[in-house]
Amino acid sequence: MSAALHENVKGKLIGVGTGPGDPELLTLKAVRAIETADVLAFFCKKGSTGNGRGIVESFIRPGTIEMPLVYPVTVESDKNGEDYRGAIAGFFDQSAKDIAVHLDQGRNVAVLSEGDPLFYGSYMHLHLRLAPSYPAEVVAGITAMSGCWSMTGLPLVQGDDILSVLPGTLSEDILAERLSGTDGAVIMKVGRNLPKIRKALEKAGKLESALYVERGTMANSAAIPMRERDSSPAPYFSLVLVPGWKDRP
Amino acid sequence: MSAALHENVKGKLIGVGTGPGDPELLTLKAVRAIETADVLAFFCKKGSTGNGRGIVESFIRPGTIEMPLVYPVTVESDKNGEDYRGAIAGFFDQSAKDIAVHLDQGRNVAVLSEGDPLFYGSYMHLHLRLAPSYPAEVVAGITAMSGCWSMTGLPLVQGDDILSVLPGTLSEDILAERLSGTDGAVIMKVGRNLPKIRKALEKAGKLESALYVERGTMANSAAIPMRERDSSPAPYFSLVLVPGWKDRP
Repeated sequence: MSAALHENVKGKLIGVGTGPGDPELLTLKAVRAIETADVLAFFCKKGSTGNGRGIVESFIRPGTIEMPLVYPVTVESDKNGEDYRGAIAGFFDQSAKDIAVHLDQGRNVAVLSEGDPLFYGSYMHLHLRLAPSYPAEVVAGITAMSGCWSMTGLPLVQGDDILSVLPGTLSEDILAERLSGTDGAVIMKVGRNLPKIRKALEKAGKLESALYVERGTMANSAAIPMRERDSSPAPYFSLVLVPGWKDRP
Repeated sequence: MSAALHENVKGKLIGVGTGPGDPELLTLKAVRAIETADVLAFFCKKGSTGNGRGIVESFIRPGTIEMPLVYPVTVESDKNGEDYRGAIAGFFDQSAKDIAVHLDQGRNVAVLSEGDPLFYGSYMHLHLRLAPSYPAEVVAGITAMSGCWSMTGLPLVQGDDILSVLPGTLSEDILAERLSGTDGAVIMKVGRNLPKIRKALEKAGKLESALYVERGTMANSAAIPMRERDSSPAPYFSLVLVPGWKDRP
């Protein structure tokens, strides 16, 4: 496990996908990476240990060095602003430096990433900074969208279907246009965009088939047809699924 | 495990995602479903036991009833033809009936699905036929695309990026248009469409960044920049990844 005795051997960086919430959806490879890591790093908000750490809690070996990476900004920040970009870039730079200290001392560092590390995950920003200088590996994770359609038993795409993954931050017109031009769709970042997303689905003629899912695979998950969902803001862990196919063999 | 003694209790149908190839990428939930199944069903071609069964082989309990579901058609069939649609629909009908016999006798049936069961997987056709009448559960799996970008350490999409999953069977013009109008993309069904896909990437100005991956996470996997790939047909397990983001914090 620990290579700390061999001063010249660099530690390995491992981005570990924790999946969508249910600890049973961790892969065997993820469990092994967590159990054998010298250092376990995880992103979190101030005052919280983060969702990723909660998912893997029962697999953390006593004696593992824990390394919270606390976001300097909140979900409410203006993400297009210069201040935000500067703060978040500085945060990733500093986090990479802190991790490099352990890697230089021969410790293997596992960085948790909710869902899949290279699919909208913060881990990728550390990977790009560290992988050129250290051995690095990425352990794929079950994405939130996959957890949601599996939990609800909703077949999403088949055969030659096109799937579009769309952020709910797009304008109503662009969302409607994208929804019209695809077979299956997943809409992320629902939050306060929910009423706009509903209108876009209606314009595209896809409101009837759309499903709203919140906290997919977690203990308090819920799924209802989008047409029945009220207009109150959705929690962070929510998305809308639009099945692609009508015609089936 | 086995409920066969309780004649009135129906067995459970479980669609189990096997992930992209590396058995270490099975989830804990998938392993448990395979280890405790009374019947293990898997799709395969005539004369083969299928890739899914190979992935889970070491977890199959002795005494498990194995149930190969042999496709009546080949990859080369014309999938838009009436003959194909009739043959494949009949095959799914018969497979569902064969599985129902076990479910009626109280046996739990795990059906293997390479990648993720409801993401382009054949399992969905059995799920739609059986889930209305029997208890059914879907265990999400790591998709082939996720296995491929993780193996190669290629961050695919971040922030408000749009991701498009496109079949390589689309025409060159439509592929190029879709590639131009998205951030990240995954092109599936590469096979003989490879030269056309290359031209479409070039038209869309995305050939330079595209990565070709074959047999991702399997023992004999390979990845090269798409611009360096020759024009010979790609194997079944291959895809093209186009990273979405240029601007990073």
